[in-house]
Amino acid sequence: MAWEKEVLPVHNEAGARVFLRGLEGLDPVFVCVIGNTETAKIPGISAAGRNPELTDYTPAADVELLLYGECRCIDGVPVTPEGIPTPALITRAALTLADVPVLVVNGGVRVKPLAPFIDVGGSPGADIRSGRAVEGVAGVIERARIMGASLARVADYLVVGESVPGGTTTALGVLLAMGVDARGMVSSSMPVNPHELKIRVVEEGLRAAGVKPGDLSGDPVAAVSAVGDPMMAAFAGVVVGAASRKPVLMAGGTQMAAVLSVVKGLEPDVLGNVAIGTTRWIARDKSSNIKGLVSRIWDVPVVAANLDFSASSIGGLRVYEEGVVKEGVGAGGATIAAILKTRGKLTCNDIRAKVEEEYRRLLERR
Amino acid sequence: MAWEKEVLPVHNEAGARVFLRGLEGLDPVFVCVIGNTETAKIPGISAAGRNPELTDYTPAADVELLLYGECRCIDGVPVTPEGIPTPALITRAALTLADVPVLVVNGGVRVKPLAPFIDVGGSPGADIRSGRAVEGVAGVIERARIMGASLARVADYLVVGESVPGGTTTALGVLLAMGVDARGMVSSSMPVNPHELKIRVVEEGLRAAGVKPGDLSGDPVAAVSAVGDPMMAAFAGVVVGAASRKPVLMAGGTQMAAVLSVVKGLEPDVLGNVAIGTTRWIARDKSSNIKGLVSRIWDVPVVAANLDFSASSIGGLRVYEEGVVKEGVGAGGATIAAILKTRGKLTCNDIRAKVEEEYRRLLERR
Repeated sequence: MAWEKEVLPVHNEAGARVFLRGLEGLDPVFVCVIGNTETAKIPGISAAGRNPELTDYTPAADVELLLYGECRCIDGVPVTPEGIPTPALITRAALTLADVPVLVVNGGVRVKPLAPFIDVGGSPGADIRSGRAVEGVAGVIERARIMGASLARVADYLVVGESVPGGTTTALGVLLAMGVDARGMVSSSMPVNPHELKIRVVEEGLRAAGVKPGDLSGDPVAAVSAVGDPMMAAFAGVVVGAASRKPVLMAGGTQMAAVLSVVKGLEPDVLGNVAIGTTRWIARDKSSNIKGLVSRIWDVPVVAANLDFSASSIGGLRVYEEGVVKEGVGAGGATIAAILKTRGKLTCNDIRAKVEEEYRRLLERR
Repeated sequence: MAWEKEVLPVHNEAGARVFLRGLEGLDPVFVCVIGNTETAKIPGISAAGRNPELTDYTPAADVELLLYGECRCIDGVPVTPEGIPTPALITRAALTLADVPVLVVNGGVRVKPLAPFIDVGGSPGADIRSGRAVEGVAGVIERARIMGASLARVADYLVVGESVPGGTTTALGVLLAMGVDARGMVSSSMPVNPHELKIRVVEEGLRAAGVKPGDLSGDPVAAVSAVGDPMMAAFAGVVVGAASRKPVLMAGGTQMAAVLSVVKGLEPDVLGNVAIGTTRWIARDKSSNIKGLVSRIWDVPVVAANLDFSASSIGGLRVYEEGVVKEGVGAGGATIAAILKTRGKLTCNDIRAKVEEEYRRLLERR
């Protein structure tokens, strides 16, 4: 295949090869599921915003960037405290180059995008230290499922990404509650992964919910309700609704392990139609372990876009190689989908070049 | 064609034939745009609910029926004051038999459906007698346009229907404001069309807005803002966004003339890709004149599903033949799309039989 060096197998290589070949030349729809959780505002948890309060705007701004090529609810684009720009730039570049349509699902945000979005009845999440993180999880799953089923009837397959600041901490919460010991294994958008802080936050949440690790292994709705985030319910619902008809590429980093665990708890039959698509930065990350996480849940294929920004002329992109940001807004999965749709005519380098062009247009004009 | 007797040309016969042939065997998506206007609560204006206050629930209940096969926000299904059931039963039967997916766009409702829907930033409409009927029209049109463009990238064509109680009065308002003298020409869900009342209401709205008939012929945003309803903005946006890529069948009665006028004001170039699909009950209605209305705006084809309930075993359906309800929730267009998708294997009679089956299941069990 023309794209063999562009998309790297990370886990379940044989399954990955079959899954990827099956998508070659097909027309996907990219779905971005957004949510907010107060957990993101705990100092030191999230880098998805210049400061913790600004993380409220990040999901809305990310999807505005995907739909319009510029943000509307904020000036510029979402950046980390160090000024590193959102991975939505990568997603936007990939989807634009390959002409892949984007739909937004609001799992529950505090700031609504100034853009069309699909409402599945979700509301913003609380600080998981309360042990009562998300309301109305079962209803959101059901509505998202209907939407996933509808979308699967019109698209050849779905690529589903997410934007929820603080999402790796809530991922750790749900994984632990469901009996997957993910301590020290979830990723971070920060240069140094604050594992200890995340574990403390999650343990406080589990205590408040009266839940011991593994207690909720059979109850994904209770796990998300206690220590999850609103993205997870909507994301899992879309996957369950779609994957009984069409393949679904879950686009993200270690948060996808938490969603996978929820999907497995809801409808394990669909897992044969699911793979995880991420970035090379997540695949090779020493401070997290997506392969280890996924193998503890279900052996779905994991593949990574071979994105490499080391030769970039732009400093804010070169630092991706040092392990900041790494993934988000489905950047890896969107890149993979763009490559597969064009049967490898588009490469990771083309996408990097487009990111640089857009970066200059958006950030350097200010 | 196998379906020649199932779909009747009403206006621009040559264009209708070309348009319909082009859709044969294709896979559409049905989009239902919903809205509420306080105008519906003026006594005598709307029959889309057992009483005026209940019209708030009708759009939500209609789309719940389309998505779930039953309503959730109300018991039973929406009915007129005489107990005649919603035309959403026809839409549901047609779309189910032909396996056409449904998406809901919330133009601005007072009661949200307990179902997934697309949010385009709309809010419920005021009584048009205020002359300030709808807020944020330009923004809603822009977001709906983006959604229409996305949907057109995944569907072969769109069928767009609506549910907005009071909608023929707001249609008269927008048509008059835009210089189409529609007095005595818009349809009604009531057994006797209250033309005089509608004209009085519209004239009061135009006076309050400081607008004389025709003043807003070049300004559809101002016309909808003054005396329209929230469905129109979202509906027109979807049409404009979709019809530059794919055909759009606007599914409805005389309200479609108002939307057509708005679309023409926004982007006349797309009109070559648009037709109106309605029911035989609207086409042959003596108290309204869809043909006359459309010919005063733009000669798009108008076609009608040859639905005939005169032989129905169910009284609540036979009375459709006496001119109550007639159309709504895209019943005619959905029927046409079901027939075309199956290349005439499905007939109007099959759809009637399915409506009867569903009617018994939903209404007689109570």
